[in-house]
Amino acid sequence: VPPDELSIIDRYFRPLAGQGAFDLRDDAGALTVPPGQDLVVTSDMVACSVHFLPGDPSATIAQKALRVNLSDLAGKGAKPLAYVLSLGVSSDIDDKWLGGFAEGLRADQRRFGIGLLGGDTISVLHGPVVSITAFGLVASGRMVHRFGGKPGDELYVSGTIGAAAAGLALLKGEAGAWSALPEQEREALVQRYRVPEPRTGLAAALTEFASAAMDISDGLVGDCDKLCAASGCSAMIEAWNVPLPAGLSGTRDSALMARLITAGDDFEILAAVPSKKAADFRKRADEAGIPVARIGVLTDPSGAPQVLFEGTLLDLPRRAYVHGRAGEQK
Amino acid sequence: VPPDELSIIDRYFRPLAGQGAFDLRDDAGALTVPPGQDLVVTSDMVACSVHFLPGDPSATIAQKALRVNLSDLAGKGAKPLAYVLSLGVSSDIDDKWLGGFAEGLRADQRRFGIGLLGGDTISVLHGPVVSITAFGLVASGRMVHRFGGKPGDELYVSGTIGAAAAGLALLKGEAGAWSALPEQEREALVQRYRVPEPRTGLAAALTEFASAAMDISDGLVGDCDKLCAASGCSAMIEAWNVPLPAGLSGTRDSALMARLITAGDDFEILAAVPSKKAADFRKRADEAGIPVARIGVLTDPSGAPQVLFEGTLLDLPRRAYVHGRAGEQK
Repeated sequence: VPPDELSIIDRYFRPLAGQGAFDLRDDAGALTVPPGQDLVVTSDMVACSVHFLPGDPSATIAQKALRVNLSDLAGKGAKPLAYVLSLGVSSDIDDKWLGGFAEGLRADQRRFGIGLLGGDTISVLHGPVVSITAFGLVASGRMVHRFGGKPGDELYVSGTIGAAAAGLALLKGEAGAWSALPEQEREALVQRYRVPEPRTGLAAALTEFASAAMDISDGLVGDCDKLCAASGCSAMIEAWNVPLPAGLSGTRDSALMARLITAGDDFEILAAVPSKKAADFRKRADEAGIPVARIGVLTDPSGAPQVLFEGTLLDLPRRAYVHGRAGEQK
Repeated sequence: VPPDELSIIDRYFRPLAGQGAFDLRDDAGALTVPPGQDLVVTSDMVACSVHFLPGDPSATIAQKALRVNLSDLAGKGAKPLAYVLSLGVSSDIDDKWLGGFAEGLRADQRRFGIGLLGGDTISVLHGPVVSITAFGLVASGRMVHRFGGKPGDELYVSGTIGAAAAGLALLKGEAGAWSALPEQEREALVQRYRVPEPRTGLAAALTEFASAAMDISDGLVGDCDKLCAASGCSAMIEAWNVPLPAGLSGTRDSALMARLITAGDDFEILAAVPSKKAADFRKRADEAGIPVARIGVLTDPSGAPQVLFEGTLLDLPRRAYVHGRAGEQK
């Protein structure tokens, strides 16, 4: 049985209160936005059996809920500032769960240099449900958008694509290319499903060099569709250049490739960069320690983006990932 | 069966997008805070069977979810600016429900002069669950706090106390003084439970004249406890001066009085005002068309605030209201 709301705040959330939170003893927090900056605001809600599994450690549930928001901020070129947290607590939650949850948040607050600004704790019949709204700063008018990409711009992704999907498949016991990997690599895939790595360090390179960008949460292809639709263009993705996780890279299996580039929870960055700025973009990303790979190019508007693989157009049974019950595709 | 997430956004939420929301076609919104102003941030989550009843109209569910946040902003002296909405959609939600929900938001956006900045829509196993984070503006450093009240300050409440609790009792079929009221007055009580009236118009009077303030969501007495604890003082409440809803005012029933002043969902303002500013405060509230009543006084710290009624200290079986399952007390 969970403690009551006031005890939860006292024990677990008050120690996380940051600047402007008034020690979580007031009805609201206050943010001061420096002159010349805009406040970038993003919000994501995650629910048990939909975005995470009932058996996931509470520390990683907390970190996933926070990091999916930080990933959005990174894709918009914003530097993380603070967040508010609303937690729906079901009757199966206990002090151990809450302690792990708060510990996960504490570690990430330190790592990303942010503080808790406020929030709410309520009872729910089925949960937990976690809703986080995160705030970041960007120079006025310099937020990076989904729109702004132009035909001829080069397409980049950070990190690797498909690791989280392989991790989820492992957790669900699905057979596949991932099953044959060494234990350490399998563990790394599961970890990537549970705890994304928001590319906060790429924000400055994006505001300076990208014409459009977004974080990839619902599959590389589907999110590329969205960037193209917003930018009024199409794209050609060279799938052999899409960086895959260790053990899966170099595959010539079209079905595996199709699955990995349309699967969810990557939380990497997709960016369009004008050719003449591409070298500077790569250099800045390298200085930030974030691997980026050129995976294709924006093209004139001509239908949905296409994916080349093994000398032909890749057949895609789906384009985007939809978070449904128990992480299954819909 | 509900439509999918993208259809919900297209059909119902995109028309609500306000300034900085980029038509809900990006991953985040952007707020520009004018120089010399702070951004006040508050967040509340409401869940079916806990904060509203399964049969409540979806328009009033939306308005309650939004208004409990606007009520927080009012209590802090902030002028509403924008909000983000995360909606957890259960399988029993359909287009009719969503249409009513969006219509409720649209009406309130017009009334309170705010726009939708962004949000998230997800599937949940039991819902709906609604999480709203609302933003308001206040002159830098002038947010009104729970702390700041001093012994001798006069205590004021806006509107009436206990109407929402009586409305909930009527919805639950509980016998009580409310049962005997004329139908029109009973309807008004139910409406107050379903749709609070945030005292936005009182914000300016609070920033100018109040030493401390908060909105009353968990019962007048319990919330007065919180204001006193934060301000390091105690209080004496003269219950006969607490404004009760039509038909219940003038009661000499101690049990009824005790219940009404410790019940939830009033969403009125509790404010401490120094005596020498009290006349100006009342005048400004009157100009804003918001009734306020002097209900007591802050005192030196000496234990919990006390309530006088019918010539004696009122016996209080509970002090605060806790939102539990199906609105029952815990």
